[in-house]
Amino acid sequence: MTDLSSGMPDIIRIAHTIFTVTDLAASRAFYVDLLGLNVLYEEPDALYLRGVEDREWTLKLELAPQAGVRHIAYRVRADADLERMAALAEREGLPYRWETERDRPRMLRMQDPFGVPVAFFRESVTHPWLLQDYHLHRGPGLQRVDHVNVMTPEVGKMRDWYAKELGFRTSEYTEDDEGRIWAAWVQRRGGVHDLAMTNGTGPRLHHWAYWMPDAMSIIRTCDILAGARQPERIERGPGRHGISNAFFLYVRDPDGHRIELYTSDYITVDPDFEPIRWHLNDPRRQTLWGAKTPRSWFEEGSSLEAFEGGWVQAKEGELKGIPVHVI
Amino acid sequence: MTDLSSGMPDIIRIAHTIFTVTDLAASRAFYVDLLGLNVLYEEPDALYLRGVEDREWTLKLELAPQAGVRHIAYRVRADADLERMAALAEREGLPYRWETERDRPRMLRMQDPFGVPVAFFRESVTHPWLLQDYHLHRGPGLQRVDHVNVMTPEVGKMRDWYAKELGFRTSEYTEDDEGRIWAAWVQRRGGVHDLAMTNGTGPRLHHWAYWMPDAMSIIRTCDILAGARQPERIERGPGRHGISNAFFLYVRDPDGHRIELYTSDYITVDPDFEPIRWHLNDPRRQTLWGAKTPRSWFEEGSSLEAFEGGWVQAKEGELKGIPVHVI
Amino acid sequence: MTDLSSGMPDIIRIAHTIFTVTDLAASRAFYVDLLGLNVLYEEPDALYLRGVEDREWTLKLELAPQAGVRHIAYRVRADADLERMAALAEREGLPYRWETERDRPRMLRMQDPFGVPVAFFRESVTHPWLLQDYHLHRGPGLQRVDHVNVMTPEVGKMRDWYAKELGFRTSEYTEDDEGRIWAAWVQRRGGVHDLAMTNGTGPRLHHWAYWMPDAMSIIRTCDILAGARQPERIERGPGRHGISNAFFLYVRDPDGHRIELYTSDYITVDPDFEPIRWHLNDPRRQTLWGAKTPRSWFEEGSSLEAFEGGWVQAKEGELKGIPVHVI
Amino acid sequence: MTDLSSGMPDIIRIAHTIFTVTDLAASRAFYVDLLGLNVLYEEPDALYLRGVEDREWTLKLELAPQAGVRHIAYRVRADADLERMAALAEREGLPYRWETERDRPRMLRMQDPFGVPVAFFRESVTHPWLLQDYHLHRGPGLQRVDHVNVMTPEVGKMRDWYAKELGFRTSEYTEDDEGRIWAAWVQRRGGVHDLAMTNGTGPRLHHWAYWMPDAMSIIRTCDILAGARQPERIERGPGRHGISNAFFLYVRDPDGHRIELYTSDYITVDPDFEPIRWHLNDPRRQTLWGAKTPRSWFEEGSSLEAFEGGWVQAKEGELKGIPVHVI
Repeated sequence: MTDLSSGMPDIIRIAHTIFTVTDLAASRAFYVDLLGLNVLYEEPDALYLRGVEDREWTLKLELAPQAGVRHIAYRVRADADLERMAALAEREGLPYRWETERDRPRMLRMQDPFGVPVAFFRESVTHPWLLQDYHLHRGPGLQRVDHVNVMTPEVGKMRDWYAKELGFRTSEYTEDDEGRIWAAWVQRRGGVHDLAMTNGTGPRLHHWAYWMPDAMSIIRTCDILAGARQPERIERGPGRHGISNAFFLYVRDPDGHRIELYTSDYITVDPDFEPIRWHLNDPRRQTLWGAKTPRSWFEEGSSLEAFEGGWVQAKEGELKGIPVHVI
Repeated sequence: MTDLSSGMPDIIRIAHTIFTVTDLAASRAFYVDLLGLNVLYEEPDALYLRGVEDREWTLKLELAPQAGVRHIAYRVRADADLERMAALAEREGLPYRWETERDRPRMLRMQDPFGVPVAFFRESVTHPWLLQDYHLHRGPGLQRVDHVNVMTPEVGKMRDWYAKELGFRTSEYTEDDEGRIWAAWVQRRGGVHDLAMTNGTGPRLHHWAYWMPDAMSIIRTCDILAGARQPERIERGPGRHGISNAFFLYVRDPDGHRIELYTSDYITVDPDFEPIRWHLNDPRRQTLWGAKTPRSWFEEGSSLEAFEGGWVQAKEGELKGIPVHVI
Repeated sequence: MTDLSSGMPDIIRIAHTIFTVTDLAASRAFYVDLLGLNVLYEEPDALYLRGVEDREWTLKLELAPQAGVRHIAYRVRADADLERMAALAEREGLPYRWETERDRPRMLRMQDPFGVPVAFFRESVTHPWLLQDYHLHRGPGLQRVDHVNVMTPEVGKMRDWYAKELGFRTSEYTEDDEGRIWAAWVQRRGGVHDLAMTNGTGPRLHHWAYWMPDAMSIIRTCDILAGARQPERIERGPGRHGISNAFFLYVRDPDGHRIELYTSDYITVDPDFEPIRWHLNDPRRQTLWGAKTPRSWFEEGSSLEAFEGGWVQAKEGELKGIPVHVI
Repeated sequence: MTDLSSGMPDIIRIAHTIFTVTDLAASRAFYVDLLGLNVLYEEPDALYLRGVEDREWTLKLELAPQAGVRHIAYRVRADADLERMAALAEREGLPYRWETERDRPRMLRMQDPFGVPVAFFRESVTHPWLLQDYHLHRGPGLQRVDHVNVMTPEVGKMRDWYAKELGFRTSEYTEDDEGRIWAAWVQRRGGVHDLAMTNGTGPRLHHWAYWMPDAMSIIRTCDILAGARQPERIERGPGRHGISNAFFLYVRDPDGHRIELYTSDYITVDPDFEPIRWHLNDPRRQTLWGAKTPRSWFEEGSSLEAFEGGWVQAKEGELKGIPVHVI
């Protein structure tokens, strides 16, 4: 008889996040009316949103007294992979429990060794996508969930753990002269990343990202936010990342949660794909064009829910300072 | 004392048209919900529409038993130019009268020597544009009126008359080996054309055109029409015209009126700009990429209102046949 | 001791093809000067080409008396997968042999049960990519190999074999009322397809496809071919496929080999991704916008090299006729 | 007998500028190899460049010991307009002389009342354009000269003089609470501007601008400069101007001359077009998206050649300070 909990869990991809927000109407105006996310379900205190290619909700907004992130969730290949995750949690003494969410009947909620609330599920109710219902697209037409970015003072260790225990492969990373890892982009899906880790006071959420159909739809996002007299929602970009080669834009929602719109990276399916190393002080790393990054982008992030409720206490690490190219 | 009616009228640009339509709700669904034209006024039997840059209505739809075109209108520089137009009509025995339209208190309605119902006005109520209200743009974001295209069996004569009497300058034209003009693009505004004339049974309206912000917004139009399960509204394109160098798309409204979406031509303000000649059978003329044109595009057009009511009887001319590049 | 040849081979992705061409200079002018493929190696009788993201050559052109296709090649995960392929060939009595190509020291060349010459390799010399060397991109900037499309009168059987023996998963397919499969799109990489099979006299190559950075780069391809007075190289498009949702263009090289430029499809990594079924006569299937397809696109293809030399004799199948939407 | 020198000169449009540069090879690498301007003539110490739509050279680079601007030139409608300019210079005591340039047999070179070296010509040798020779376009495909921007401490007076004496019409302007004009955009051609004046130590050239086919070609410019490891050439943008609504990018050449790439503004041909007023401190004015502007953009400019040789001494004015949105 096979031990279903042995072996490495097979994680397919990043899947969803749940944000708490303090004013659901304001959040709706931002995510639905301006960014054009599609509403799958609307409850008195919650909204379930998705991009036009998403067959399931990928962002849930929950009304709460404080803005934060309940968890970030990954999809696994088989039910056995959930058992493997639970066995891993047992083995490492990581807190975990079984939960449900709408359309997700069985979800393993745990805390990773770095304090990040993560969840895993196999089964999800799917819905017809809107990909070819172009007449129903609104605003910039956010297409599908792409990745999550987490701030942590332990990037090196976190990358190693996700590689060793969960099979995440590194596509790019930032290193200083002493060989310390400041940031890492790791993937399961064959793209540049499902998960990025960047150095900073943490654990906190840095951003949640949607894939866009093209660069022009990202530029349209800027125009729409400016048209709505909310240019302050635009934090950084548009620009071309050196890392990932993607065309990007960072916007902040009414509670300060950061969303990245992202397009046009590359594929990483080859087994011999060699991770790309960037030096910490390379000005082309963050923006290929050399543009400076606002300080807020390095310093601000969303609180993460603690396993027993309340919020994880973010801590500073030993790697201090931010890169030279800051406004 | 100056004779206000002497001299050539100074026509600024093409300005508006009025279509009669047989189902106003169907037309509204097409022009407003899918193409995204903005509604300035909505009356029980009429809609006044504009693009996001237009400061005034540029397309009026009127409910009527038969689909057709009431007139096409140009804006003139001064009130004296209207007097000059009236004097021209008197001189040439062209029927004319003074009319009003909503936001256009004084409009000279006449019939040109080729049977086309044209109107001229100086004064118009203007409205704040929506150019930078990007959050209010819908669908492909039609930007501003660009030109009109009329089918006539008398292209050569018509071009000459518009040049001599109204100062229209030719930017491009199509000619056969015998020096007969099959089509001409003429302008007042410094672009490629305010008015095009193409050989065919006429006079009829061939199409009414809006300027688009870029080629991608034209491609989005195709996607939106396809998403709405109305691909049959797409008649020709998208493609790049040889003539004008513009990126284009032709769509047909529920009554068959043809609309062109058009972008990226060139300027013609130099006095020594030499009209570009295309040979009738050059395959790069209609679509630089050599794509074939559907037969309907050559054969179908909208009826024009006769001066005394009813519809102008379109006639065949001596130039028969359509170019070789037809589906 | 493990039997390295047991189990299903793990194929990573489509990798390269080798075309024979009858005029290498003419082919170079097309692929390098107009399309902008990058030359990795230039030999007296051969060119090794790649897109800007490709780390290895993905299209080899060989001078030969007749135009055709030597083989299409896939990359496998491990050396053991090559043994598994050889074992499969033995088991099924498929002809195979070991070959080498420049930068590919060990390649298994075989004939699949449908007469298609295929090759498999694990090891390849890789080269620094040009993805971020934007100043070196030329023309439309073809980015990376995306897929191959093969014509066969046995689509249903071929799809089943590739699924059962090689683990290709179906993303979309075309079916008639009697449940007969006319075309199938199958993948290993998590995109829409590495391999497509379409009904027709075969086996022949229908096309070889490159991923493009965006729709505008595809439009630029049309402009460049038209600028070079070669509009006849454009066979079909640009347009939006119903199947795959991709924006596409088909061009023909000087020997008639068909190349597709392709962008903006979707991901298929979820295990429960349900293949999308299209009815044979759905006009939105081939082009979402309803555009008609030229007859040549259905009827013409490239000859495939037979295992013992010479060319595979293409045969008609029982499914006759082509879809209704043809020019 | 008509006095040819009476009346207002009829200026058609901005036409060319002549930059002195200190390293012609470095300038060539920037303008030709990276930006893709077309070389009409190459002399030992000079290059004559143009965009793909330009029928004549629009930027001349001259090797000289110091970088600066010899003059900026406008095209006039008729020879009589040159006489009118000369008469104006006589009347106002402005220094002037007749000069020639390659392809410009007769050019009136004068100094305007604000110290700006300007030239006027009617006749120019024209060349076949490259607009539809897309296979010959290089890099981002700069299309045609669009406008010039001059820094002056006397914006209000300068705008009034250009309006009164030369018929320039204001499309947009920046004003403070005391009604002082900080910047003005004025036009002859029916677009947003041929000439802009911005407050600052002057007279100096702020920038010389080319029209681009679309926003994506501007983004490609950034990628190309980054690819060539010259991100420092990118000074500001890409972004959307509030003023003019144009999508823009500012780059600096090897001598520091500033070039703007610009697209997608609007037309201003209507006689009742009402100039758009922006308040000095409106953050959407410079970049609709609220992006900050680097200090160098406000402070640096190119020296202008004095009428008698040497360089005009730039002076500070009474309007001090730069807007709040600065990096």
